[in-house]
Amino acid sequence: MDRIERGIQQLDKMKGTNKDLIFSNLEDVAPDLVRLTIEFAYGDVLGRPGLDLKSRQVATVAALTALGNAPLPLNAHINMALNVGCSREEIVEVITQMAVYAGFPAALNGMAVAKEVFAERDRNGTV
Amino acid sequence: MDRIERGIQQLDKMKGTNKDLIFSNLEDVAPDLVRLTIEFAYGDVLGRPGLDLKSRQVATVAALTALGNAPLPLNAHINMALNVGCSREEIVEVITQMAVYAGFPAALNGMAVAKEVFAERDRNGTV
Amino acid sequence: MDRIERGIQQLDKMKGTNKDLIFSNLEDVAPDLVRLTIEFAYGDVLGRPGLDLKSRQVATVAALTALGNAPLPLNAHINMALNVGCSREEIVEVITQMAVYAGFPAALNGMAVAKEVFAERDRNGTV
Amino acid sequence: MDRIERGIQQLDKMKGTNKDLIFSNLEDVAPDLVRLTIEFAYGDVLGRPGLDLKSRQVATVAALTALGNAPLPLNAHINMALNVGCSREEIVEVITQMAVYAGFPAALNGMAVAKEVFAERDRNGTV
Amino acid sequence: MDRIERGIQQLDKMKGTNKDLIFSNLEDVAPDLVRLTIEFAYGDVLGRPGLDLKSRQVATVAALTALGNAPLPLNAHINMALNVGCSREEIVEVITQMAVYAGFPAALNGMAVAKEVFAERDRNGTV
Amino acid sequence: MDRIERGIQQLDKMKGTNKDLIFSNLEDVAPDLVRLTIEFAYGDVLGRPGLDLKSRQVATVAALTALGNAPLPLNAHINMALNVGCSREEIVEVITQMAVYAGFPAALNGMAVAKEVFAERDRNGTV
Repeated sequence: MDRIERGIQQLDKMKGTNKDLIFSNLEDVAPDLVRLTIEFAYGDVLGRPGLDLKSRQVATVAALTALGNAPLPLNAHINMALNVGCSREEIVEVITQMAVYAGFPAALNGMAVAKEVFAERDRNGTV
Repeated sequence: MDRIERGIQQLDKMKGTNKDLIFSNLEDVAPDLVRLTIEFAYGDVLGRPGLDLKSRQVATVAALTALGNAPLPLNAHINMALNVGCSREEIVEVITQMAVYAGFPAALNGMAVAKEVFAERDRNGTV
Repeated sequence: MDRIERGIQQLDKMKGTNKDLIFSNLEDVAPDLVRLTIEFAYGDVLGRPGLDLKSRQVATVAALTALGNAPLPLNAHINMALNVGCSREEIVEVITQMAVYAGFPAALNGMAVAKEVFAERDRNGTV
Repeated sequence: MDRIERGIQQLDKMKGTNKDLIFSNLEDVAPDLVRLTIEFAYGDVLGRPGLDLKSRQVATVAALTALGNAPLPLNAHINMALNVGCSREEIVEVITQMAVYAGFPAALNGMAVAKEVFAERDRNGTV
Repeated sequence: MDRIERGIQQLDKMKGTNKDLIFSNLEDVAPDLVRLTIEFAYGDVLGRPGLDLKSRQVATVAALTALGNAPLPLNAHINMALNVGCSREEIVEVITQMAVYAGFPAALNGMAVAKEVFAERDRNGTV
Repeated sequence: MDRIERGIQQLDKMKGTNKDLIFSNLEDVAPDLVRLTIEFAYGDVLGRPGLDLKSRQVATVAALTALGNAPLPLNAHINMALNVGCSREEIVEVITQMAVYAGFPAALNGMAVAKEVFAERDRNGTV
């Protein structure tokens, strides 16, 4: 199995179904960046052994909240965190904790994204 | 029990014994910042229910690696992550994953801190 | 008086009346983060002696402009800066100065938030 | 020729015609910040010898993508990069490369801005 | 009086005597960057009316602590803040406050720089 | 030819001989992060057609100066920029320009790294 297949399989495992959100509709203008993301992020890194997938999503939600530069990818990764076993309460705790390490504005911004995700999943009947 | 006691108890639980490192020897010049850190970070946030302590340290190591602005606190938190049950392999995986979300230089820098921590613990005979 | 009361009193003193903006409507999804913000930011820190409230808001407007990651909190803090005695000219100077320390794009972004605040206050007949 | 004239001439050379975008419509609220930007950025720096204008725009597009804090200035500078001789393919490569140094979310965000610029230029019949 | 003279005069006013620290000994390799800093930062911006010099230094110390990317310039600006009338207590308060907006690690790092400045001034018999 | 070979070939092409600097001596503690860097950064991205290698190094030096979080990788990439055809003057211009987009402290810090690189190459008799 090659890297792109492994990446797509990993995305499926994380039920990363909203690919428009994950890749910002960039298949037309930058197909190689989308391919490199699937190959490297999903194929090479997120599927590695040595750390369970739930912990990987805790790490990603923490980092994207702290960096504060990417609300769409944060939205996608909160969804995938919930898909691989994180509870909403755990997501809220991870983001709250970022107030300590990246400041309250970063935490409040990240929580606003979580609120959107929770509302969208409520509308779709997803846990 | 008041907040400062709860914070100190939480620090003890995480075997955050190297307080010089955690608080950068600032008790003399800024005792209130040290107290606020113990009260808020350790007393109010890190001891909250809703997320296990190991996951909390995964989140912190991820965020400090991604932000890249604080090698001393990252050193302290990698130590505390190992103290509360993370394996070295898991730390290496969290930091490697940050290459995806914050770039390779941030991940390489964070890993250099982990290397120091591992070497120090080897010298001290700590796992 | 406990911390939450002290925080609310501090918010009132700064006429931080637009609580939806300050806390991003997060009372439902993350009531504890909102409470921690009131307790810590407003109750523990902003009301401390040793620095006048106007200087504190100068510091906050400078930092949020430089970080550039939080337009909503910046909006709220420009409003509170004006409420505690900063003039519009002083706000414009603080943000202009950030061009030196954080680059022109950060300063231009911060100024666009100030422009919104000034227009809103003009509509409401507030200085 | 004074600095402001030199700055305006440099802006003309880069066909930075969309001044609303470049200066965020801030002439009324902060005319001095707009003037300082023209004088310093365009008059003092971007017109300097020692580096061709195309390379200067490669540097700016890279930096604004990596920092991720300024989508409007990034839009303006991708336009100016194309105006001074960068091809769309080169812009796509610069932004893709930022995945290595600033992470995939920063690169995906930057590419979404490039996609907007390309679409706008298609509508206007500009290369 | 031209801009470079005005900049040097402003530096003198702030008793920014440690020019090695302020300009990182870069006169040989990048004399133009040093000149641009004096002209723009000190000549054009810091001497502007509309905000008192003490408030300007509060803004700069806050921003450099929050950004966390420049310990040497932060050292220089804490010194200049003390030179233009800030007390040590006020510096400590500004940096402590950054825990709220940029996180505890940024505040602890900034405070470590302040500690160095205070110790150096104690050795030199400066307030 | 596989990705790791292509990456090593690309590193050789850029005369990235100081691998200790580039990979921070991390082969022992995190061999996979080093391998992923060679495969992805050097094998997949930096060798892509569509942008000449000199422009790629301009982009990287600009981004690492602006981000300000990685002096060792910046050192390595200034060296590689000089190896693939950038002049010292061009490096100085790229870093100077970052004063506009990321602030003077970031530019001064980046220039201090360039100064080290130039001095080291003078000692080694390299242009």
